[in-house]
Amino acid sequence: MSLAESIDAADLSTADLHSSLEDPALNSMNFLNEVANHYPDAISLAAGRPYEDFYEVDALPRYLYTFHRHLVEERGYDEAQARRTLFQYGRTKGIIHELVAANLELDEGIDVDPESIVVTVGCQEAMVLTLRALRAGPRDVLLAVSPTYVGLTGAARLVDMPVLPVSGGVDGIDLDELRTTIHRARGEGLRPRGCYVMPDFANPSGISMDLPTRRRLLALAEEEDVLLLEDNPYGLFYEVHSAGHHRVPTLKAIDDRRRVVYLGSFAKTVLPGARVGYVVADQRVRGADDTVGLLADELSKIKSMLTVNTPALAQAIVAGKLLEHDGSLVKATMREREVYARNRSVMTGGLAARFAGLPVSWNVPGGGFFVVVNVPFPVDDALLERSARDYGVLWTPMHHFYDGAGEVRSLRLSCSTVTAADIELGLDRLAALVSDELARPG
Amino acid sequence: MSLAESIDAADLSTADLHSSLEDPALNSMNFLNEVANHYPDAISLAAGRPYEDFYEVDALPRYLYTFHRHLVEERGYDEAQARRTLFQYGRTKGIIHELVAANLELDEGIDVDPESIVVTVGCQEAMVLTLRALRAGPRDVLLAVSPTYVGLTGAARLVDMPVLPVSGGVDGIDLDELRTTIHRARGEGLRPRGCYVMPDFANPSGISMDLPTRRRLLALAEEEDVLLLEDNPYGLFYEVHSAGHHRVPTLKAIDDRRRVVYLGSFAKTVLPGARVGYVVADQRVRGADDTVGLLADELSKIKSMLTVNTPALAQAIVAGKLLEHDGSLVKATMREREVYARNRSVMTGGLAARFAGLPVSWNVPGGGFFVVVNVPFPVDDALLERSARDYGVLWTPMHHFYDGAGEVRSLRLSCSTVTAADIELGLDRLAALVSDELARPG
Repeated sequence: MSLAESIDAADLSTADLHSSLEDPALNSMNFLNEVANHYPDAISLAAGRPYEDFYEVDALPRYLYTFHRHLVEERGYDEAQARRTLFQYGRTKGIIHELVAANLELDEGIDVDPESIVVTVGCQEAMVLTLRALRAGPRDVLLAVSPTYVGLTGAARLVDMPVLPVSGGVDGIDLDELRTTIHRARGEGLRPRGCYVMPDFANPSGISMDLPTRRRLLALAEEEDVLLLEDNPYGLFYEVHSAGHHRVPTLKAIDDRRRVVYLGSFAKTVLPGARVGYVVADQRVRGADDTVGLLADELSKIKSMLTVNTPALAQAIVAGKLLEHDGSLVKATMREREVYARNRSVMTGGLAARFAGLPVSWNVPGGGFFVVVNVPFPVDDALLERSARDYGVLWTPMHHFYDGAGEVRSLRLSCSTVTAADIELGLDRLAALVSDELARPG
Repeated sequence: MSLAESIDAADLSTADLHSSLEDPALNSMNFLNEVANHYPDAISLAAGRPYEDFYEVDALPRYLYTFHRHLVEERGYDEAQARRTLFQYGRTKGIIHELVAANLELDEGIDVDPESIVVTVGCQEAMVLTLRALRAGPRDVLLAVSPTYVGLTGAARLVDMPVLPVSGGVDGIDLDELRTTIHRARGEGLRPRGCYVMPDFANPSGISMDLPTRRRLLALAEEEDVLLLEDNPYGLFYEVHSAGHHRVPTLKAIDDRRRVVYLGSFAKTVLPGARVGYVVADQRVRGADDTVGLLADELSKIKSMLTVNTPALAQAIVAGKLLEHDGSLVKATMREREVYARNRSVMTGGLAARFAGLPVSWNVPGGGFFVVVNVPFPVDDALLERSARDYGVLWTPMHHFYDGAGEVRSLRLSCSTVTAADIELGLDRLAALVSDELARPG
């Protein structure tokens, strides 16, 4: 069928479909992918995919058998039960919740009942479940640190939940603005339900919150009676110093009032192709019949109508990798941590070598995949297309993370899936682009 | 944490969460699973799970390697591309769309562009994507043949889309009632967007539509300008007669006006633990900028914010099984077809042997997993609990499939995952229950 046929032949119109389909949030990803596909030879400092050179096809069967053996030897399943666990419909909240809980205790010092965990189809589903539950009516709104991961904005669109931005600033969140925004929303008759934050090496800003900021944020959430939705895909990719490293605890690790819904992902620590994430929702919920249950069980009901359960085979792959590393993702990601640290160093060093003395600035994150570069000219999609076509380098215009805001003068660089040599070459090309833009009259 | 603590300790209330969470549709599954878990020794004529004795753990690695070999040898991928396909984030619409399109042509005579297929996390996600797209505002409603698969009702709840029932009757759908319901809804200012049907061996009724009914249904959909959402999880489990079998074509196979959105599932034909389904959405959609695209691409945008993509590993497993059977699920399910045919025969024969002459009736489906038994007394959840506790047999009260209707006097039996001996024993127990109920005074 040729889509070039007359538009009179259309069966439907997007005007008759859900409003999200014409929304920039749902079209950002498509646009960025299209540019990347259109210029396959450009060096990509845009892709946020994890480093892939350590992936081995033969590891997949090994992980499957490791999990199968765990079911039989550690959990005492007979052969039929173990097979049923892998092949059949399964527990809605997942089959690796105990391994996830043990991992959270070991790697993050987070102590939660495994029953408060829902294993999801990537962290994206975890966000959708949480927002679907919290959006009871048109008054319910979400707050989010801006710039915001576009997947959060998209998930909110799917459940018709407005997202009110709160500046991230240099601390990762502007707490005064958070409180003001909550009060203003209430004054307008709205009901702020929670605030979405990525305290560790945020996407896209690369910024982390320090411990005092985290404690103040928790106190504010308690005072204002909102939840915190803590998303933590990059926390394990911290800088390793020769003097040892003291990681800042996650919000959930110091959350003694059940204010935090913790969103977890195995995409970067195990592999994206399994699409396994989870949500920790230990909040207590009073039902219409006055019984009290876990928020996780409410999210599970929604999940039963969204995806039924997370593929057992995908959970088994993740479990196998966990089991092979004594349940520790810190152990499992040692090589990746080194690669990312090297790449960040090449990137920030390379920026300094090329842009010192120019009206260009950038941050030097202590971990994660991303560096944000600020320039003295507007960075829009047209500039990205020109960069791809004429300079051979891809990056991400930051305006995609500001949910419809106006002109934005910054771009995001990712160093997760490139070689050091490609970072250098990509930065040469970026420097040529910036130099030409700076030289433009006006 | 003990949930028996005072309800004063609750953090949230379901009154503040999405209304679906107190909805019977989302609680049916939980209730039925709880009864089953509470009486593990009862014989289950309730579970709709597929037959599991043919599942082999060693088949999983074999399927993975088969798909990997296919990528390298048939599609010309180099080692890095093949690895990336399995491990990384992937195409939102899926990586096995061409295999699915080839299978639909081979097994079903459905000829569609692979680009009009979105591979989903089970058929459940396919339903959610479709309903999310079609529910643009509060006027939009869905029609569904009643009794209805509870997963459809639940998916509609998640997007706040009302479902108007249309009687299935003995033909699988009452076309006069369908037209009347559409007209009445329009009279009330509503906008009927589509009608959900399961034309082959429906869950829960077991009923199939004959070819003239299918043709009339397609004509009516065209006249009234509604879509048909055709769900087909059981179509391959048809009766095999010694004289050969002429299958009735699916709606999609005879849909020459793009009226049908086809919902497919590999849960029963391959395995549920992969959670792979798909939707064929070849409808043309005119965008705000007057370009024309496929409905599949609109669904893909929603999917990118719901689950990002279907796990590549799960798609690989399904692809491996397809490839091992020359792309044919008819071939791949020969043994299962025989088991289900035998079980249906044992069940309907067993019902005749036990209930002939009593005021009890049932249907004799030509395929699928389910038989509906009608009795002259109300069949509610209390009766199911009594059946499980006192008689040791589980089945499904049909009222769960009527979306809040009142008293229902029928129950669903499933024969998919039990032995012939267990069917006989289960029917003995059911006969004892029915006999005791018939003997009750009043």
